[in-house]
Amino acid sequence: MGRLTTRRPVLRIDAAGTVRRRPDTLAVEEPLELRVDGRPLSVTMRTPGHDVELAHGFLLTEGVIGSAEDLATARYCDGVDAEGRNTYNVLDVALAPGVEPPDASVERNFYTTSSCGVCGKASLDAVRLKTRFLPRGGPVAWSVLGGLPARLRAAQKVFASTGGLHAAGLFAPDGEPLAVREDVGRHNAVDKVLGHALLNGRIPAGDTVLQVSGRASFELVQKAVMAGVPVLSAVSAPSSLAVELAEESGLTLVGFLRDGAGNVYTHPERVQV
Amino acid sequence: MGRLTTRRPVLRIDAAGTVRRRPDTLAVEEPLELRVDGRPLSVTMRTPGHDVELAHGFLLTEGVIGSAEDLATARYCDGVDAEGRNTYNVLDVALAPGVEPPDASVERNFYTTSSCGVCGKASLDAVRLKTRFLPRGGPVAWSVLGGLPARLRAAQKVFASTGGLHAAGLFAPDGEPLAVREDVGRHNAVDKVLGHALLNGRIPAGDTVLQVSGRASFELVQKAVMAGVPVLSAVSAPSSLAVELAEESGLTLVGFLRDGAGNVYTHPERVQV
Repeated sequence: MGRLTTRRPVLRIDAAGTVRRRPDTLAVEEPLELRVDGRPLSVTMRTPGHDVELAHGFLLTEGVIGSAEDLATARYCDGVDAEGRNTYNVLDVALAPGVEPPDASVERNFYTTSSCGVCGKASLDAVRLKTRFLPRGGPVAWSVLGGLPARLRAAQKVFASTGGLHAAGLFAPDGEPLAVREDVGRHNAVDKVLGHALLNGRIPAGDTVLQVSGRASFELVQKAVMAGVPVLSAVSAPSSLAVELAEESGLTLVGFLRDGAGNVYTHPERVQV
Repeated sequence: MGRLTTRRPVLRIDAAGTVRRRPDTLAVEEPLELRVDGRPLSVTMRTPGHDVELAHGFLLTEGVIGSAEDLATARYCDGVDAEGRNTYNVLDVALAPGVEPPDASVERNFYTTSSCGVCGKASLDAVRLKTRFLPRGGPVAWSVLGGLPARLRAAQKVFASTGGLHAAGLFAPDGEPLAVREDVGRHNAVDKVLGHALLNGRIPAGDTVLQVSGRASFELVQKAVMAGVPVLSAVSAPSSLAVELAEESGLTLVGFLRDGAGNVYTHPERVQV
């Protein structure tokens, strides 16, 4: 509860191929299920802490409440993990008398769910059950991996003019781009690339690297896993839950890949230095 | 359809306070409603283009389909805007015989909706109807605005150690921080800040500036508008739909605010040079 960061060992590889093992600090990402009067309303992937503020702000900006008095109470439910500890990942709020409960139209911006929620473990289990493909792929040379951000940027048509687009690219092990797409939403850029692969008979996407321009969240790892991609590489930081899911799913996760240097968070056996 | 960028005039203000009017290129953001066999399944805010790939990738990574053959057809619906033009923002796919339609558990990662969709105009109308507060606030000095990214960064506790967190801060017109929050999700950071304001009697958030560490999407503008914030300022680029909503809602939208220079996209009357 309120834990903003967590540490885990990573392999730091520099541009010359020198490998060092060192601890890395990750931003914590965990699901928060919000219930209104006991009824699940939304799940958001958030950094724990200030959850009561989060609930108030979310309900305010979705038009459910207009003042602090519109909520009577906010308390954590008794959600427990496999070890019986409260996960503090389910928050139940009670509306004050006379406040209209959220209607269907409010669900527009929500991650609605009953399957995900309660705790990170539960959502990880849900993903694992749904995956059709194992991530398969032989080793990828670090020298190739290190060059992918530059290749991705070179293929980005619009970023240079707007600065407003995320990019995702699916690459062959020799660094040849199979598809590169840009979008205001990073999940959309990834979906477009994987959709292209599907339409071209390239799913499961064995022996590929999915390179993204920003951070690696749980959601992006999940998409890679669902498509059978063996290596996901991000220019920026992964979240704690992204690393956890990658570890459990057999996905090689690379982060902070810049100027030929980067961190290997999980399954380094696919990285050839 | 497939329009990746759009241009509009902005006021470019440098660190010395010199104002120039010039065109700026924006990444296009528009809603795409995905229907499966005629039934609305999700709405995502995306950059138009490669929508059929997007639908395939989305359904793949949500576990609905596993191969291209699982979809029989994909076609745009006849959604039209106020001028009767097809918006190409509703895509209907038909599952192949024998493919299970998505069940409730799949909706976990979806923006579910019936209110949003069809076209950007419709979703903008929906927001405007829901807003309880008008954005009210007197002028803010450019010298104060230009300093907010540095103040936000100074208040970020975790970013320096992980590089993985978005930040949002609500500031008084003199630049004093009212609340700063960090989160793996930018919408969560904003919700936490606005929730804090709500809990402290500061909603509607008149005479404030909401400063965010990344880009300004439709979603963030919407949240600012819902809380009565008069000025939203982003370190990076706004999307086309963010600018459109800010314009219509009376919100002052600042972007690319770095080293004291930036762009004013809408309602410059609140910016005092």
